[in-house]
Amino acid sequence: MTDKRRRRLPRSVREQEIIDAALGVFSKRGYRAAVVDEIADLAGISKPMVYLYLGSKEGLFIACVRRESQRLAAAFREAAQAGDSPEQRLWAGLGAFFAFVAEHRDSWVVLHRQAPEQGEAIAQEIADARRSVMAEVNGLVRDGITKGGEADRLGEQEADFVAHALVGAADSLTDWMERHPGEPPERVTVRLMNVMWVGMRNVLVGEVWVPPQHDA
Amino acid sequence: MTDKRRRRLPRSVREQEIIDAALGVFSKRGYRAAVVDEIADLAGISKPMVYLYLGSKEGLFIACVRRESQRLAAAFREAAQAGDSPEQRLWAGLGAFFAFVAEHRDSWVVLHRQAPEQGEAIAQEIADARRSVMAEVNGLVRDGITKGGEADRLGEQEADFVAHALVGAADSLTDWMERHPGEPPERVTVRLMNVMWVGMRNVLVGEVWVPPQHDA
Repeated sequence: MTDKRRRRLPRSVREQEIIDAALGVFSKRGYRAAVVDEIADLAGISKPMVYLYLGSKEGLFIACVRRESQRLAAAFREAAQAGDSPEQRLWAGLGAFFAFVAEHRDSWVVLHRQAPEQGEAIAQEIADARRSVMAEVNGLVRDGITKGGEADRLGEQEADFVAHALVGAADSLTDWMERHPGEPPERVTVRLMNVMWVGMRNVLVGEVWVPPQHDA
Repeated sequence: MTDKRRRRLPRSVREQEIIDAALGVFSKRGYRAAVVDEIADLAGISKPMVYLYLGSKEGLFIACVRRESQRLAAAFREAAQAGDSPEQRLWAGLGAFFAFVAEHRDSWVVLHRQAPEQGEAIAQEIADARRSVMAEVNGLVRDGITKGGEADRLGEQEADFVAHALVGAADSLTDWMERHPGEPPERVTVRLMNVMWVGMRNVLVGEVWVPPQHDA
């Protein structure tokens, strides 16, 4: 019985608090070992109330995946839209991604490390989340082309290919980032720009991409 | 009771047959839904014999992950070693990877899509498999540098970064490949070389990397 429990809150606020608590518990314990009692306790609410709000442990997990993937996609989109060249949009988008992962570790653990085989509904939600992130990146790639005056160079299929390569590389690099906690997300972004933007050949001969000076 | 069941085979051969059968069943059903009876039946051996050979359903899965990740790493390594420039080594290594995925779909489903949260032992085995593939790619990246006369340009940490980007991109692109079954692995490889080798900037302005003519 915490102080929180006695507060009266609107449903939407309460729901967000429950999702906050669930994120922490799922990230720390993993889906299977997580227990709703701990989530309820952290949220300062009774277990029946948690079920009333979000249905089940599975419902809690799905709510976490949905909210956090939307946040991640929005962070990526907003950052990318602010850039005024393909190079800057990619740089800003990737920067927002790595910053999100660094700042919201629990969210990333739930989105990235929790198993897809937790049952159909969760697998579906994670697949949807990945698709929505992929769509953002695809949009950035296609948008980058058009605004760069090279319309029609990259078809839908090619843009989707580049999006898969980018998302896969960025996903995988969060594991690298985890093992190099001293490396700030900004440096990780610049490193990836070196590999993906200027190209690995240039990295190999020692050429280094530097962030454009212009406003960003 | 099939004809197979009556054959007498050396233990090592029998074991490989059981793993072949298990791969097919795990790939088709998923870990949870897979039943050892079906694996035994496919392998033409009794269920107690399957347990005698490989211990448990978990043991079967681990044997699949171990064998197939070693095969994949070996295919990558052998192909990459045959190239005589960094560019050719990367091209050949990625080509072997995508060819393996296309030709051994069951293996790739088990390695890539089966959940890590199937228990500690399996999660450990999949993590080990990923580490061993990463080590091959890391070796290729560092080797590429040294033989290219650019020793010391890339440190261990930087090579590991590039390896993570490459492995992540390639992993993610197998999903793209699955949705474009008409695309042969060779074309997927050339596409990725365009993105990762020549650099995304060059793709954006319409420059296209073509495989070197020299012997490969």
